[in-house]
Amino acid sequence: MTNSKNLAAAAAPGFRDLAGAALEMRSSMVARILEVYRRWGYGPLETPAIERAESLGSELPDEDRPNSGVFAWESIEDNTALALRYDLTAPLARYVAQNIKALPLPFRRASAGPVWRNEKISPGRYRQFWQCDADLVGAPSIGADAEVCAMLAEALVAAGLSPTDGEIKVSNRKLLDGVLESSGVNALSESARLTTIRAIDKLDRLGIEGVRDLLGPGRRDESGAFTPGADLSGQQTEQIMRFLQADFSELAALVGASAVGQDGLRELDAALELSTKMRPEMPMRFDPSIVRGLGYYTGTVLEADLTFEIEDESGQVRRFGSVAGGGRYDGLIRRFVKRDVPAIGVSIGVDRLVAALALRAPPAIKSRCERPVLVTVMDRDAMAIYQAMAAELRRAGIDTQVYYGNPRKFGAQLKYADQIGASLALIQGSNERALGRVTIKDLDLGRRISATANAEEWASQPQQRDVDRANLVPEILSMLR
Amino acid sequence: MTNSKNLAAAAAPGFRDLAGAALEMRSSMVARILEVYRRWGYGPLETPAIERAESLGSELPDEDRPNSGVFAWESIEDNTALALRYDLTAPLARYVAQNIKALPLPFRRASAGPVWRNEKISPGRYRQFWQCDADLVGAPSIGADAEVCAMLAEALVAAGLSPTDGEIKVSNRKLLDGVLESSGVNALSESARLTTIRAIDKLDRLGIEGVRDLLGPGRRDESGAFTPGADLSGQQTEQIMRFLQADFSELAALVGASAVGQDGLRELDAALELSTKMRPEMPMRFDPSIVRGLGYYTGTVLEADLTFEIEDESGQVRRFGSVAGGGRYDGLIRRFVKRDVPAIGVSIGVDRLVAALALRAPPAIKSRCERPVLVTVMDRDAMAIYQAMAAELRRAGIDTQVYYGNPRKFGAQLKYADQIGASLALIQGSNERALGRVTIKDLDLGRRISATANAEEWASQPQQRDVDRANLVPEILSMLR
Repeated sequence: MTNSKNLAAAAAPGFRDLAGAALEMRSSMVARILEVYRRWGYGPLETPAIERAESLGSELPDEDRPNSGVFAWESIEDNTALALRYDLTAPLARYVAQNIKALPLPFRRASAGPVWRNEKISPGRYRQFWQCDADLVGAPSIGADAEVCAMLAEALVAAGLSPTDGEIKVSNRKLLDGVLESSGVNALSESARLTTIRAIDKLDRLGIEGVRDLLGPGRRDESGAFTPGADLSGQQTEQIMRFLQADFSELAALVGASAVGQDGLRELDAALELSTKMRPEMPMRFDPSIVRGLGYYTGTVLEADLTFEIEDESGQVRRFGSVAGGGRYDGLIRRFVKRDVPAIGVSIGVDRLVAALALRAPPAIKSRCERPVLVTVMDRDAMAIYQAMAAELRRAGIDTQVYYGNPRKFGAQLKYADQIGASLALIQGSNERALGRVTIKDLDLGRRISATANAEEWASQPQQRDVDRANLVPEILSMLR
Repeated sequence: MTNSKNLAAAAAPGFRDLAGAALEMRSSMVARILEVYRRWGYGPLETPAIERAESLGSELPDEDRPNSGVFAWESIEDNTALALRYDLTAPLARYVAQNIKALPLPFRRASAGPVWRNEKISPGRYRQFWQCDADLVGAPSIGADAEVCAMLAEALVAAGLSPTDGEIKVSNRKLLDGVLESSGVNALSESARLTTIRAIDKLDRLGIEGVRDLLGPGRRDESGAFTPGADLSGQQTEQIMRFLQADFSELAALVGASAVGQDGLRELDAALELSTKMRPEMPMRFDPSIVRGLGYYTGTVLEADLTFEIEDESGQVRRFGSVAGGGRYDGLIRRFVKRDVPAIGVSIGVDRLVAALALRAPPAIKSRCERPVLVTVMDRDAMAIYQAMAAELRRAGIDTQVYYGNPRKFGAQLKYADQIGASLALIQGSNERALGRVTIKDLDLGRRISATANAEEWASQPQQRDVDRANLVPEILSMLR
């Protein structure tokens, strides 16, 4: 097992480890979101991380990557391709199709877990991230769209946002389809259509001019790299640009005679009216630039954006943008079963939301009673006695650790106590043991005193307290309070 | 998006979906285990599912599979191999090595999540399953071994076992090493050594004679398939077989003059003595057959076995066997850093434990107040009114769903209520709305009455109650109580 040359100790490129406050924040956030979903009738479902690649399809916008940005490989069993899920929607579609005869319809479910994207490596983007989804399958009516919008607002508030921290932007894919139809883009090719949708989806990042370039011949970025565009005519481009800046009252004129566009307008109107009546916990409004990058949406599309500005690690003030998105995907399940199964869903990017909230307000320092107590070790032969002390504390609900290094280096034990953020350290040498006593060292007080105290305070607030072993637990509980 | 030929709707071979009671049971079990780990000082860490394949090494016993039973593929970035983690220990070793300068030592951490094994498909075995681990790194003393054993017992009780439901079996790899040394097996080859360890690890499944065959020339199973053995001499085989049936008092004679064997005996003795003094919540005893299949263990090895018998789905009564395991792996981190970093850890197979507990006692039927209320839809135009009703109930903490199918088929709505296990259904047509009334249908009572009641009961326990809309929430709360 020993190698002459050591292995590089590094996570795979694009992946990260998560611990401490950030992980605790996400776990608690996921639990609170799932609790909201459950209250609305969306019980949990877990599908496996690995699916047949063909079940997932290739709905990701990352066309310039092999497997469209999916981690995939050949199964050794039968040479079929396996892949890691890139979202929680495609596996849900497979699950619903597989169990369509047994499931109650409408079928509601929630799901939380990691998804994987084989994207180009860039700062702050990870190839594994968590999503927290809710889907409503088998409900064609626009009431379902309104329900999902209102529930998303409630889930985001439960996740830790205030009602003014975000807004839910809603549009409908059919509106854009109408514009593409009446401008003649749909007549060009499926690829021109998809390139157009993906260009629009980048409005947030590239701005109006960037999108205009991508609708036309293409765009050269600051690094000099060129992205080919959809090659639309100037008139087509302008028609789409007008749509992107339209407000609701202009939509009828923009979709013109297109039947699908008029459908989209009716659906959008109904969804907005109904969800507003539900008095959602966050503002909700039409935004024409919401199209969502994934290929499978067919009707209502929605996105939750943060409205507050944050300062990132490099001190730059910026908007954080989208933390959730979703929409209606009435065609996805039909790939498996010979019938229409309408569906709508929403996905909260919990890792992004945790990052945004942590940047705005770093997690609070833990209170004394949430931090551990350290039992120091003065002589190794008494290990069982130290462990019994720790067990007694744990039974009283106090997080307690026993030190396991070299007991002779007491300084290392106190440094360890500091590193783990311990509130108290317990010390019992053989003399104290003979007398039935234990010393409790108040590490918080020690830190405070050494930083600020004058001589009087020093004297009046002893950092160490010598207590009867039999009273150890009540003494500690009173100190932690 | 529509194909002429439909895709097969099926999870990938060897994978499964999890929902309902089984998923809820696991989520709650993981939370309770992590709570015990935390109380002992083991805070949570999440490493990514994907690692560089070389970081994971190939410590799995599945030698006859490509990549030793690991899901692995080439990265498109730089042609290095990536792999899904097959346990939580190898990624921890990588994490510790990567952060060795910043981590407090001893370093305690907990981790829960799925792992993946590219094993042959067989009934009841899945290629993705959850583990719930705790590891103590940088603590060479045997006190650490005792701590992990005692904590495991506490975690298993928190997970839902009674103290007599299981036992913790302990041994030490060095004992076996001593036997292999004094019998001359170690002098043969590393592969003979590993084949021997893996043969012993199968004692539970193959019995004494099966292991004897695998130590010798090999074993032919009932299907006729032949597994080559370690090809030991008759004398070597007998020496190992004696060890496997030894009790503690015979160990000194069996390890003989082997220094490593004597070390193992001292460590085992100390670990058992110390952990017994810690009064673990489950019985703990020496078992010579505990070796653990993974290659990286170096000292103490442990396993938690269930002691009760269960009836499996096919009605067969059987012992469930191991649900947790672990041990000391002092060499694993050294692969990355040029220093010894001793470590010991334990892993609970939570999916196996959930399966065992569910087979013994199926999950209790949920109480009335844990099940949803269904708001039926009599006319679609009133959707906002039905949603407002549901919102009011949710604010009172009641799980509530609104139906979204064809409102004209009232029978389908009641069937749906039944499928989701609803306790109550709310009905409000336009007449009732005009009068400010709502009908509450007690679905539980309806089921009971239609099954057993006589005419008198029928009359005295009305399944439907007509209530004032303004009193809806208190009326429902009183019915759910």
